[in-house]
Amino acid sequence: MYNFCNRLAVRSHLILAPHHSHPAPLPMESALFSSSPLSAFVPRSPPSLASRPLRLLSLPFSLLIHHSPPPRGGPPLLPRRLLRRFSPAAYADADAAAASAAESRSSGDRVVARPSSELRMGRPGGSGTGVAGDEKLRSLRELFARPDVAIDAYIIPSQDAHQSEFIAECFMRRAYLTGFTGSAGTAVVTKEKAALWTDGRYFLQAEKQLSPDWILMRSGNQGVPTTSEWLNDVLPAGCRIGIDPFLFSHDAAEELKEAISKKNHELILIKDFNLVDEIWKSRPKPPGKPTRVHDIKYAGVDVLSKLSSLRSVLVENGCTAIVISMLDEVAWLLNMRGSDVPNSPVFYSYLIVEISHATLFVDNNKVTPGVLDHLKSAGVELKPYEEILSEVESLAAKGAKLWLDTSCVNAAIVSIFRSACERHFTRLATKSRKQLNNGASSDLISIKSEDIRNGIPNGLYKVSPVAIAKAVKNKAEIEGMKNSHLRDAAALSEFWCWMEQEVKNNLTLTEVAVADKLFEFRKQQEGFIDTSFDTISGYGANGAVIHYKPTSDSCSFVGTDNLFLLDSGGQYVDGTTDITRTVHFGEPSAWQKECFTRVLQGHIALDQAIFPERMPGFVLDVLARSSLWKVGLDYRHGTGHGVGAALNVHEGPQSISFRFGNLTALQNGMIVSNEPGYYEDHSFGIRIENLLLVKEVDLPNSYGGIGFLGFEKLTFVPIQSKLIDTSLLSPMEIKWVNDYHSQVWEKVSPLVNVAVRDWLWRNTSHAACWTLKSRGKMRTQLMSTCLILSISMFARPIKQQRVL
Amino acid sequence: MYNFCNRLAVRSHLILAPHHSHPAPLPMESALFSSSPLSAFVPRSPPSLASRPLRLLSLPFSLLIHHSPPPRGGPPLLPRRLLRRFSPAAYADADAAAASAAESRSSGDRVVARPSSELRMGRPGGSGTGVAGDEKLRSLRELFARPDVAIDAYIIPSQDAHQSEFIAECFMRRAYLTGFTGSAGTAVVTKEKAALWTDGRYFLQAEKQLSPDWILMRSGNQGVPTTSEWLNDVLPAGCRIGIDPFLFSHDAAEELKEAISKKNHELILIKDFNLVDEIWKSRPKPPGKPTRVHDIKYAGVDVLSKLSSLRSVLVENGCTAIVISMLDEVAWLLNMRGSDVPNSPVFYSYLIVEISHATLFVDNNKVTPGVLDHLKSAGVELKPYEEILSEVESLAAKGAKLWLDTSCVNAAIVSIFRSACERHFTRLATKSRKQLNNGASSDLISIKSEDIRNGIPNGLYKVSPVAIAKAVKNKAEIEGMKNSHLRDAAALSEFWCWMEQEVKNNLTLTEVAVADKLFEFRKQQEGFIDTSFDTISGYGANGAVIHYKPTSDSCSFVGTDNLFLLDSGGQYVDGTTDITRTVHFGEPSAWQKECFTRVLQGHIALDQAIFPERMPGFVLDVLARSSLWKVGLDYRHGTGHGVGAALNVHEGPQSISFRFGNLTALQNGMIVSNEPGYYEDHSFGIRIENLLLVKEVDLPNSYGGIGFLGFEKLTFVPIQSKLIDTSLLSPMEIKWVNDYHSQVWEKVSPLVNVAVRDWLWRNTSHAACWTLKSRGKMRTQLMSTCLILSISMFARPIKQQRVL
Repeated sequence: MYNFCNRLAVRSHLILAPHHSHPAPLPMESALFSSSPLSAFVPRSPPSLASRPLRLLSLPFSLLIHHSPPPRGGPPLLPRRLLRRFSPAAYADADAAAASAAESRSSGDRVVARPSSELRMGRPGGSGTGVAGDEKLRSLRELFARPDVAIDAYIIPSQDAHQSEFIAECFMRRAYLTGFTGSAGTAVVTKEKAALWTDGRYFLQAEKQLSPDWILMRSGNQGVPTTSEWLNDVLPAGCRIGIDPFLFSHDAAEELKEAISKKNHELILIKDFNLVDEIWKSRPKPPGKPTRVHDIKYAGVDVLSKLSSLRSVLVENGCTAIVISMLDEVAWLLNMRGSDVPNSPVFYSYLIVEISHATLFVDNNKVTPGVLDHLKSAGVELKPYEEILSEVESLAAKGAKLWLDTSCVNAAIVSIFRSACERHFTRLATKSRKQLNNGASSDLISIKSEDIRNGIPNGLYKVSPVAIAKAVKNKAEIEGMKNSHLRDAAALSEFWCWMEQEVKNNLTLTEVAVADKLFEFRKQQEGFIDTSFDTISGYGANGAVIHYKPTSDSCSFVGTDNLFLLDSGGQYVDGTTDITRTVHFGEPSAWQKECFTRVLQGHIALDQAIFPERMPGFVLDVLARSSLWKVGLDYRHGTGHGVGAALNVHEGPQSISFRFGNLTALQNGMIVSNEPGYYEDHSFGIRIENLLLVKEVDLPNSYGGIGFLGFEKLTFVPIQSKLIDTSLLSPMEIKWVNDYHSQVWEKVSPLVNVAVRDWLWRNTSHAACWTLKSRGKMRTQLMSTCLILSISMFARPIKQQRVL
Repeated sequence: MYNFCNRLAVRSHLILAPHHSHPAPLPMESALFSSSPLSAFVPRSPPSLASRPLRLLSLPFSLLIHHSPPPRGGPPLLPRRLLRRFSPAAYADADAAAASAAESRSSGDRVVARPSSELRMGRPGGSGTGVAGDEKLRSLRELFARPDVAIDAYIIPSQDAHQSEFIAECFMRRAYLTGFTGSAGTAVVTKEKAALWTDGRYFLQAEKQLSPDWILMRSGNQGVPTTSEWLNDVLPAGCRIGIDPFLFSHDAAEELKEAISKKNHELILIKDFNLVDEIWKSRPKPPGKPTRVHDIKYAGVDVLSKLSSLRSVLVENGCTAIVISMLDEVAWLLNMRGSDVPNSPVFYSYLIVEISHATLFVDNNKVTPGVLDHLKSAGVELKPYEEILSEVESLAAKGAKLWLDTSCVNAAIVSIFRSACERHFTRLATKSRKQLNNGASSDLISIKSEDIRNGIPNGLYKVSPVAIAKAVKNKAEIEGMKNSHLRDAAALSEFWCWMEQEVKNNLTLTEVAVADKLFEFRKQQEGFIDTSFDTISGYGANGAVIHYKPTSDSCSFVGTDNLFLLDSGGQYVDGTTDITRTVHFGEPSAWQKECFTRVLQGHIALDQAIFPERMPGFVLDVLARSSLWKVGLDYRHGTGHGVGAALNVHEGPQSISFRFGNLTALQNGMIVSNEPGYYEDHSFGIRIENLLLVKEVDLPNSYGGIGFLGFEKLTFVPIQSKLIDTSLLSPMEIKWVNDYHSQVWEKVSPLVNVAVRDWLWRNTSHAACWTLKSRGKMRTQLMSTCLILSISMFARPIKQQRVL
């Protein structure tokens, strides 16, 4: 997983002698840090371990179930968490901008848990109400010397305890400490120095927001070290480097530990309190809004059935329990939704599913009587959120075989479990030795040891089975996704119709105002809850910034001289949407048209793909790029990510990307985005994105008895014909555009008012007459479409009939 | 590498705890067995080890240079040897039939080292001159009890000591022992049982050829165990299983050792004699034809320069020597060619390159004075072939850092080296301990140990650097490939012209007769040496057998009622060819035309691909399949393999395959085949194959400063227009066919006589007029082509002008 960026390095050699495989270090800013603290909710109760910093203890290998280890030299396996972070949020960078939920937003009332004014104004030395810049650092460093801390450096990542893409404000510790409010960044503070790592999209912002006490580390620039490289460089050998183990996945902590061990540094897990929280005087309260039941008509499968399937998988794998820490997995499994973070309808919680019962760890105040009944009927007990650690310890004491997806479960949980297992094992081993000394034969002891092994707790470190179950949508989920997409399409049609007028009359229409207006249109749709990510509204050169996020104080006016890229999505009660359109309100250049058309050709090629089942998504990625490659163009992000059903807009495990590390097969019922693009720095950006449902296709043949899959479109919003250079398109591609627009008209026109219907007509009919005059078959088809349409829309003015 | 066939199994779980990675077992019949004995040439001289069977001894890890181990969960790395066997010979099954060199052939005089009548008639109990069936097994089993053998079972693979695709007759021990002459198979003999594993293409043949004493193991059929599974099943625990370590690569032997250790069996390396040789009374002599110098005008780079580059790589990797055992690598590096095996112009030898000198281990009688001068001027010494082991031992004694590609270097060499290293290390360690006892401080000793480590011999187990150097062709090699392809195209045009007539007049034209006739035409071409593999000549249902190899006693007549598939290639002094064409001499059905057209569309899509540099071939594989997938069709072999320049027709490391394990990037100067197909069992087979040169392309843009690559065709033989359903083709695809045929005409017509030119004209001009009447641009282009052509071919009859 670690070397995908450097394919040549990977393939250039092969070690064939037996060896230990060690995790290679990950780039800090991308995947190493993952986290979130439970301490936010209550002062952490040290469950049973001493309150001293906890060192990562390794269990003897024999205690771990090595479940079919990845074969040596075998296909690459990315921890699911990394797939998520890389594939949807970073691979399909297209949408990665959506990840910047932590930032201040322009319109105030539509999203829960956004940064307070304190955070927004948190510029050190500025008017923030918090401790001033150096003051914060000084306070933090004072803590280093405390006997229960005793560290030389502290790492402050951006994450919460659940690897969430969008996090609640009380967990924005890195933003509080540094004053830098970008979504991605890692702060490292030593006794003498303080440094912040962030990536290219935030260099300017970080320069503005950081006080002179901070060194800005421009990740990705040549010669810039990773956090661990830097620590190994600036600290003398043998230092103690502290982290909050809730804020790192177990894997990430292990990798960090490995990386800093090169300089003999020790990784100190400080689990009883977060050092930033200690100095954060007016820290916001943790989110406490009530959760709700996700209606069975949208969920499709009841909780008991989901738990029962999960338990079967546990039994098959010889496990007695599983800890689920990903918030969307908990929400999906329990048919519940919440509003603790922006954009994703999830709530802070952990879930432990055992063979006979299940326990949800959540704050009581979030559970309404209705939700309580819902959980009771599924046999799910409630415990306070902060009791997760003590429960994991008692699982070990009970001899549980615990399934832990260490790519996302945090280091606090995993290390508590491993320590508890080790204590248990030591106790039993001592007992056995005593028996041996008392005269039992060594044979007997070896048999006993076997028994002990069977009886003692251990961990299965394996990707969570909930991820794939959640990714393959059931009938009701598909239905909800289709319905919400039609309402979303209606909102977008209304928006584009408004926009087309507005942009000509309003010379000071800003990118932010556009996003706000779009929000208004969406809000009018039934079942709308929230945006599914922060709208990317980029005019001209801003469209070329893949992660662009306009803010009210620094954004462009939208005009008629350049391309306008709009990537947005909605959370509805029945589904989640994600769509990008690129338009020009004036006269596009021939070059812009060529680029747009090549992106469209890639979009069409992927949309039309038919492929055998069991095919990983990356096999199809080339289809979306071929037309760009023909003229030496490309785009630096993946082509598709998974999307949740009324859940996270980015989910795994599937993806469609040029990085071929993700071997997850596309399956009937999965949803993926189709979003090729092209970005010309300082000039313009193009992206065309629809969501697609993976679907079995019925073909005249079935070679080798294998099933074939294809895609069904979920998104129905016109693609601007003006930007298409039809001379580049094949007849098949022209037919695709026409067919798509016919479908858009058919599905969306009944949902909008007359004025918008007029806009929709114009924007779905123009393409229809391209080069098709001589094609009798197409003409007949279009004529019959017209006939149907004219029946269904008698209110339309006669002048707007389709020209064939 | 081991789980590629089962992608789902691979991606379904992830072990994140540290673990030892063990080699997984390989299917026996494909890659586990690899070999060839040096004992063939002389009675093996036990170099310095006792003549007792040698056990595989593992060195302490610290003795091995672990050169950047593949990251855990990182991209899959296939040992190069496996890539070769899987990618060209098995992935691109298209050509795997070519691997069946061991079989009897129909026309007697054109290929060296083919099976003698003894082998051909080796049917146990038949008229073979060897020991009769049971007699052979009885004799072999008698040897099991000898004190210097002392084994319970013996494994007899098909290979020689160099992992050669085509082997000399004296190494066909498996064929001699079992009577089964198919190219692929592994025999295992225990004291009670004898079993032979082979794959689907040889089931019938094996049934006919095996005596009742043999159990036929149908590899690939459900429930059929692998050889090691079977051994673990039929033998009681703790047996001694013998192999000839020359006949297994080190990796294969290690994997076998691991697999049988499950039943506590021990792997015994019997290196001093091969048990089959002991009972093979009239064993053919090893090949002894003289080698020749490969002219610098074809080789392009002289030996000194090649050795110098190799030495730089050795130094970069901290090595002082390398053992090269692949015959094509030796031939390429030394600009020499030979004729020890059929189809490949190589000679049995090993090469050791050290920093200051190089030694070729080859039988003296193969070295002519000219070759001797050639080698001397490059500073290459000669030693007898069989001295390789003692030389490797003395390298260890000299403290060499030896580069060994254990995926292809045999277990005899690697184990000798490891044992020698271990002895050396033990000796030094003892010496150090003595010094310690004599009062030296422990600090001093630890420093000494470091020195010792630097001074002692060790192995770098890494893919041979010669493979990639050989795969990237230089200017002269490319020139030679182009020239030989034109002469080959002339031969094929003459052949197809003849065939078209013959098939109508000769009702008893057999597949074998066709192959023989083709050979005659090729033989007339300048510089022709041999076929590059056994011709696959399959009419009707036989064309659907991907590995089909007709024999004179069991082959079909070629008629006008079905498709005829012909896959063949030539070895020329300046290049190697490999081409497949599928034709119909009567009226193809609409379905056959659709299938052919879809295969052609895949061929065109790959041919036309433009892609960024550093892209592994598998990314492009989908392009060749998309058109088939659209209607539920596919083919079960890879799409492209590497081809040597006047060398092996199958070479690595690159490939284009649906199996995405090979991460080797396609590079400017590489050669790959483009051979999609479709096979309808019991009905017909289709394959269209050209060779392509990977070439930098000059594009209007260069996104991110990245270079782009494309393909240049090397093969110029008409594709039968009759089989193309033009209604399925896009204008671009039609243009491709027309352009290709124009090129064929232009390049090949000057090389053939008038009658053949007439055939060529008809077969390159028909396609030109499809649907192009209204396309002015195309018409102009075609007219100018015509103009050029008519100037260049004044001899053509006037009536045959192109119809536009």
